[in-house]
Amino acid sequence: MSPAAIKRLLIGKPFPSSAASHERLDKVRGLAIFASDPISSNAYATEAIMMVLIALGTMALALTMPIALAVIALVALVVFSYTQTILHYPQGGGAYIVAKDNLGTLPALAAGAALLGDYALTVSVSVSAGMRALVSAVPELFEHRVLMALVTILILTLINLRGVRESGNVFAAPTYAFIAGVGLVIVIGLLRYYELLGIPPLPPHPVYVPATASLAGIGLVWLVLRAFAAGCTALTGIEAISDGVAAFQRPSARNAATTMIVMGVLAMTLFAGISFLATHMNLVPEPAESILSQMTRGVTTDLPGGRLLYGWVQLFTMLILVLAANTGYQDFPRLSFFMARDGFMPRWMMNRGDRLVFSSGIVVLALVASALVVVFHGDEIAMLPLYAIGVMMSFTISQTGMVRLWHRIGAIPTGGRVRTQYTVLRSETGLGWKRAVNATGAAVTGVVLLVLAATKFREGAWIVVLAIPLLITMFRAINRHYDHVRRSLRTADLAPTDMREVADVVIVPIADVHRGSLRALKYARRISSDVRAVSIVTDPALKPKILERWNRFPDITEGLKLELIDYEFRDIVDPLIAYIDRVNNVEFPSQLVTVVVPEFVPQSLAENLLHNQTANLIRLRLRSQPDVVVIDVPYHLYERRPAVGRKAGQSPTSGGDPGHTDT
Amino acid sequence: MSPAAIKRLLIGKPFPSSAASHERLDKVRGLAIFASDPISSNAYATEAIMMVLIALGTMALALTMPIALAVIALVALVVFSYTQTILHYPQGGGAYIVAKDNLGTLPALAAGAALLGDYALTVSVSVSAGMRALVSAVPELFEHRVLMALVTILILTLINLRGVRESGNVFAAPTYAFIAGVGLVIVIGLLRYYELLGIPPLPPHPVYVPATASLAGIGLVWLVLRAFAAGCTALTGIEAISDGVAAFQRPSARNAATTMIVMGVLAMTLFAGISFLATHMNLVPEPAESILSQMTRGVTTDLPGGRLLYGWVQLFTMLILVLAANTGYQDFPRLSFFMARDGFMPRWMMNRGDRLVFSSGIVVLALVASALVVVFHGDEIAMLPLYAIGVMMSFTISQTGMVRLWHRIGAIPTGGRVRTQYTVLRSETGLGWKRAVNATGAAVTGVVLLVLAATKFREGAWIVVLAIPLLITMFRAINRHYDHVRRSLRTADLAPTDMREVADVVIVPIADVHRGSLRALKYARRISSDVRAVSIVTDPALKPKILERWNRFPDITEGLKLELIDYEFRDIVDPLIAYIDRVNNVEFPSQLVTVVVPEFVPQSLAENLLHNQTANLIRLRLRSQPDVVVIDVPYHLYERRPAVGRKAGQSPTSGGDPGHTDT
Repeated sequence: MSPAAIKRLLIGKPFPSSAASHERLDKVRGLAIFASDPISSNAYATEAIMMVLIALGTMALALTMPIALAVIALVALVVFSYTQTILHYPQGGGAYIVAKDNLGTLPALAAGAALLGDYALTVSVSVSAGMRALVSAVPELFEHRVLMALVTILILTLINLRGVRESGNVFAAPTYAFIAGVGLVIVIGLLRYYELLGIPPLPPHPVYVPATASLAGIGLVWLVLRAFAAGCTALTGIEAISDGVAAFQRPSARNAATTMIVMGVLAMTLFAGISFLATHMNLVPEPAESILSQMTRGVTTDLPGGRLLYGWVQLFTMLILVLAANTGYQDFPRLSFFMARDGFMPRWMMNRGDRLVFSSGIVVLALVASALVVVFHGDEIAMLPLYAIGVMMSFTISQTGMVRLWHRIGAIPTGGRVRTQYTVLRSETGLGWKRAVNATGAAVTGVVLLVLAATKFREGAWIVVLAIPLLITMFRAINRHYDHVRRSLRTADLAPTDMREVADVVIVPIADVHRGSLRALKYARRISSDVRAVSIVTDPALKPKILERWNRFPDITEGLKLELIDYEFRDIVDPLIAYIDRVNNVEFPSQLVTVVVPEFVPQSLAENLLHNQTANLIRLRLRSQPDVVVIDVPYHLYERRPAVGRKAGQSPTSGGDPGHTDT
Repeated sequence: MSPAAIKRLLIGKPFPSSAASHERLDKVRGLAIFASDPISSNAYATEAIMMVLIALGTMALALTMPIALAVIALVALVVFSYTQTILHYPQGGGAYIVAKDNLGTLPALAAGAALLGDYALTVSVSVSAGMRALVSAVPELFEHRVLMALVTILILTLINLRGVRESGNVFAAPTYAFIAGVGLVIVIGLLRYYELLGIPPLPPHPVYVPATASLAGIGLVWLVLRAFAAGCTALTGIEAISDGVAAFQRPSARNAATTMIVMGVLAMTLFAGISFLATHMNLVPEPAESILSQMTRGVTTDLPGGRLLYGWVQLFTMLILVLAANTGYQDFPRLSFFMARDGFMPRWMMNRGDRLVFSSGIVVLALVASALVVVFHGDEIAMLPLYAIGVMMSFTISQTGMVRLWHRIGAIPTGGRVRTQYTVLRSETGLGWKRAVNATGAAVTGVVLLVLAATKFREGAWIVVLAIPLLITMFRAINRHYDHVRRSLRTADLAPTDMREVADVVIVPIADVHRGSLRALKYARRISSDVRAVSIVTDPALKPKILERWNRFPDITEGLKLELIDYEFRDIVDPLIAYIDRVNNVEFPSQLVTVVVPEFVPQSLAENLLHNQTANLIRLRLRSQPDVVVIDVPYHLYERRPAVGRKAGQSPTSGGDPGHTDT
């Protein structure tokens, strides 16, 4: 099967460019798609808080609930901020665009770097957590979790390369099924905890874990800050809607904003419920079983039908996590496209593939996410510090951008409007409190960012602290390069003298006189009156043979120069390049010099390995010469020769000299 | 540091071809160099026999000595055979050449395959055994033996790439030091065993190992055969002299033959002595300490100065083994050269490198030997079955060839002579008994070969049984290919009509009109009156822009055709190739069609990654078209433009349209 056929099988037939459609989402499906990421955070956010607190033993877990409430307050602040962003950037307003529009290039690149990393982590964290949901239910699979995660990423990649319509109903199901399942478990759990409706009370779960650190050694404030920072992973994915406003049905900004609020309320309700029950059921984090799984198991499995509900929750936890991973496949290529359009990422990130998706972005994302899964052994809790730092950084930048936006709107006269690169701004009221909310949001997320960077530095945050400046440097280098290319190629200031003249000289490196080199010489004499065949002679005994054959074909060789250059070493490329250099720089300076390279083309790559790679080496070396034009005259070793009309497989009559096969 | 500078540092400055010298070896140094391989076999040959017998417990080890004597008889037979070969093939007569001269191509290729494998195994077995000598003395290094073996191979490779004079005195020392050291140990051991000269008798060494198999289950004959076959590893390396006759001082054949006999006697004396003592000292094979080490330790360490002698033997065991490995570096590239000269191996195996050695052969050998060390975890005993099979196969073929040679010599009239491809044969006497000896030798080594293949099949012999036919198939395929190339290129039957005409048409694929494509168009109009710029338009909105820019440069574009081809998909290479195909096959069948590809050349590889690889893709696709000549017109992105004289780094004035960067 050819590579092209395999591609067709995996990806499907190419779509014509006109097939690009813009199907739009209603709120129900929009919620399902965009909410999968933040809502799925419930699979690990509570656990992340408890993992920090457990250092002081089971008693400290009582702090989980107050910390969760603080996180919820922060979510409310961020959700408000983003509804404002959505209303002002109806074409899509991720942190990169808001920063670019309000704060300038550097903050925008910082936000872009943070978000690209986050989208990759969305994939690796969500897929790893999804595998953990599966492994919690089927412990035998624990040792295969990395491989399973990689296979899941591969499948997601293929699906996205084929092109998924974001609106597929199949995507709506797991989100709602997860919300329903976990919601039901929380309700039952609360009823059992308060011993209402006559359901049997929760079974006792007395686990005691001793402290591994002393309070004196850590400091209570520090511990609470770290736990709070860890809990902020619940905020991941909130910003996705702001980038995808254009995907909603009209009025898209309004619908997106409403969806955002509903999403925030749903996610935080589940978060509060899980945190409450996990604390009051005395659950303790364990490596092989997630807190959510422990809680669901404790609430349900001793009830009739409880095992079914447990299975339901685990199944849809896994599916919503995979779905959340899939949002990375929407966000990463889209942001890459924006940044490539602005010249900060490689241009090919803008190319739509056979199925009209940004294939390059999808492939790059898959590689980065797979690498993360391998490096972190599929342990999503270990990846969370990286994830949360990026999220907080983009929040801080985005909200700072919004504060600046309010200033700019404040400067617009009533009823006036200002067009920016990304949106149209109109005057509005209530600027004071809106600005206050965003300033508070920026301040709080900024503080969380610093706390995360400080508390999690050794646990992986250093990677982000290192990577973001590196990425920014790369973005700027790419930008400089494209800028230079644009200036190098521009025709506006092109003067007639700018164009190099073509020198009337053609150099033909030959190893011997044979059908291949004769073909090249014939071509060369057609385009120039000064053709020089150059042969590097490493064995003087061969000279007369070459001359004899040269003189046998006067039709082709008459009037051409044959330069035989003696050489004491065996690497013939050096003297050849030296000869070409001399012709180019001494004889014809500032003109284009032409080199005709006769080249065999064997039938297969394996056959190619049997020949010296002289032609390839010459071409490679000549690439660095700005004024050398290279002509490849191919000679296919298995082509039928026209005049003789001999059938393939028949042997020609014997006799005569074989040519060398060196070139 | 550039790759070229690193190469200079590791390999040294290139030598001119005239520096190839032909220093010749006297017998003393010849023995040291060629004998290192067979004599070093004593480091493991006795042990190989004992490893088989130990399956029946310590009692069975008593069979070691009789089996060793049988091996010695076989060695005598083989040595006689090879002295005859040497006398008749003074230019070198390895099994490959003897078979090619007397038996034909297929047996020669079989011998070549067996020997190439053996030479690789010479390196991997000897280096591994050398590491074991070291590890026997310094047990802490046991776990690093594979790494140490690989580093040793790397060092040997670099030394050989630099080019060693075979005659270096430094190579003579370890061989003679080993012979002296082991000889002294054997003498002391025998004196102590027979309680002569008043030296204290050998300390008792009562070890009892129970049988792990029953005699009924194995069969005594089978066991003895297997042990005998295992002991035949003592024969490895004997044939090396026959290939290197030309390296000896004149009369080279005589000197080589004498050296061969001395070598055989020395090697077999040591073998007999080691086997005798190992049996009578009741030694038992152990994984971490070799029999030779155990024997030396037992004989010497309780005597004054004994520890010194023990260290001496271990040191020179290691060194002679490394030296034996080095013989592989002489033999493998030399045989590869012979086979490449006959067209059975890639031509580049014949190329001499910067230092006049066959660099390709050395590198291929190093890779194969390293792979063997890794696969077998540096356990030379496990590699021995493969090694011995190849040796026996080449012996059998070589001696069969000699039998045939005696027939041919018998047919020469007295005083007459016959010139073959490889040697000159004269009539001689005593053909009857010489033929009988070689026939016996061929029969015995043939039987040993079958026994080895049968008894060691599952222990690795299957690899050889599989590899040799595969290698032969490869040699023949390579030969067919070169044959075809020779016939494709021969000029003897070249008719004027055989040469394709060059069509007066040039196709220039362009993405846009910019400095790069204008340069290509200017070049194209110089060589043809029918220039067609072809642009694949994926977005109709861009058409007027291209046209506007096209018309702005009438100096260059006037009289050229501009073909704008609308395309509904994004992969623009397909329609471009289709257009070229049509011009080539419909408009100008059986003529050479020219395609001029404008190409940016960015400064670095990293920058290259930022551009679409359209030019490369086009070139790659056009390679499969026999009648398409490709012209690369480079445009270096950072070249200074001559007319404007602007300094590098200064920004040009702004304005005008940037070109695309797609091509």
